[in-house]
Amino acid sequence: MLQSNERIDQLYAEDIKIIQSSEVFSFSLDAVLLANFPTIPKRGRIVDLCAGNGAVGLFISRKTSAHIYQIELQDRLADMAQRSVSLNGLEEQITVYPMDLKNIFTKIKPDSVDLLVCNPPYFKNVPTAVKNPNPYLAIARHEIETTLDEVVYTASKALKMNGRFAMVHRPDRFLDILDCMRKYRIAPKRVRFVYPKAGKDANILLIEGIKDGKADGFKIASPLITYHADGSYSEEVSRMLYGS
Amino acid sequence: MLQSNERIDQLYAEDIKIIQSSEVFSFSLDAVLLANFPTIPKRGRIVDLCAGNGAVGLFISRKTSAHIYQIELQDRLADMAQRSVSLNGLEEQITVYPMDLKNIFTKIKPDSVDLLVCNPPYFKNVPTAVKNPNPYLAIARHEIETTLDEVVYTASKALKMNGRFAMVHRPDRFLDILDCMRKYRIAPKRVRFVYPKAGKDANILLIEGIKDGKADGFKIASPLITYHADGSYSEEVSRMLYGS
Repeated sequence: MLQSNERIDQLYAEDIKIIQSSEVFSFSLDAVLLANFPTIPKRGRIVDLCAGNGAVGLFISRKTSAHIYQIELQDRLADMAQRSVSLNGLEEQITVYPMDLKNIFTKIKPDSVDLLVCNPPYFKNVPTAVKNPNPYLAIARHEIETTLDEVVYTASKALKMNGRFAMVHRPDRFLDILDCMRKYRIAPKRVRFVYPKAGKDANILLIEGIKDGKADGFKIASPLITYHADGSYSEEVSRMLYGS
Repeated sequence: MLQSNERIDQLYAEDIKIIQSSEVFSFSLDAVLLANFPTIPKRGRIVDLCAGNGAVGLFISRKTSAHIYQIELQDRLADMAQRSVSLNGLEEQITVYPMDLKNIFTKIKPDSVDLLVCNPPYFKNVPTAVKNPNPYLAIARHEIETTLDEVVYTASKALKMNGRFAMVHRPDRFLDILDCMRKYRIAPKRVRFVYPKAGKDANILLIEGIKDGKADGFKIASPLITYHADGSYSEEVSRMLYGS
């Protein structure tokens, strides 16, 4: 089941096994934070866009009986995701589509999705950007194959009216994110900032919006601190990773 | 020096005395937070818009030799501010203008201000809003005499190129604030969210922007928690209030 240089890791909190490879793709804390952030529908359709090796959808599967569609451009990563689905016996609940998000409406009906989650490439593809020489990682991290604008456009088209969009991203893109969401009729509703330690600037943001939602009622949720001063995980992050 | 129902309070951290009245106006923690937030120029011109009883300008005076102009619409409050300036012997450094901010360019040259701070009315003046029956407090809290749009327009016109704008406001107005700032060429640069306790949504935001600043480099500063779980002030707020 494993290819060379792959390993099986476990997210203990959700009792999920996941196939990883440091040469191709390993999920980061960001995926765990995203899976724990949005209001998750009990049933219906969930799409995980830019799914990578499938971490977010796998983690969310434990909290819902909704069907989960994982969309991943890179065949090598989508193949890892598909094998992780099998490894956890989730073939009935999770469908992996190895495809460019430009093409998802051949498989997903517009206006049909209850929740769309996305952990997109964070970095602008500017000529001066230093990119990872590993193409798998470069595509996952830099806006080479897609952009924030395209991700949010696609999300909005896929979502039902009042469907939810949830994304993990970087605080320095926050204004762009708000602009894109409003451009495509997703009302920003709740943001949570993640700070590496107390006293430090935020390094991750989680944002949730509602398609065709009202413009008012914007909330900044409680701060999430990743590490204690001694470098150990905070209680909240530890619960997400280990369940206690 | 004191009128009936007035009292003199002290901000120990800055060794400032301030005339207050629970019937007319008393400064809140928001003023202390704002005074401690922006990068404060060592010299030049600082404007405190919507100055109330002058708390923000009085607190900032200890950190700079810049001249501070306090603009307050309500004569009764501006009079309190003027008497507090005298009480602290700050007549050389602080000028109080009892005037509508619509008229400030009769006194303040456009494009001349290094830092503009503002603790404006927070609440939209919608017909259904429950307003304080006390007119002093209603005007200070609701957008009856001015609006967010007018405040930011006025701030931008007053500021020099690369001058700084700093405001305290509520998180539910955050999107409006970002839109107004960008509408009037103030690039949002740094936001700090204030949370009443750990685990609670933010209830105050502090935002800093730069007139004609670059659009990139947006930061979310470390979270500020007001109270410990036991209801006592956190170390950081205690330092702002008592100096230790």
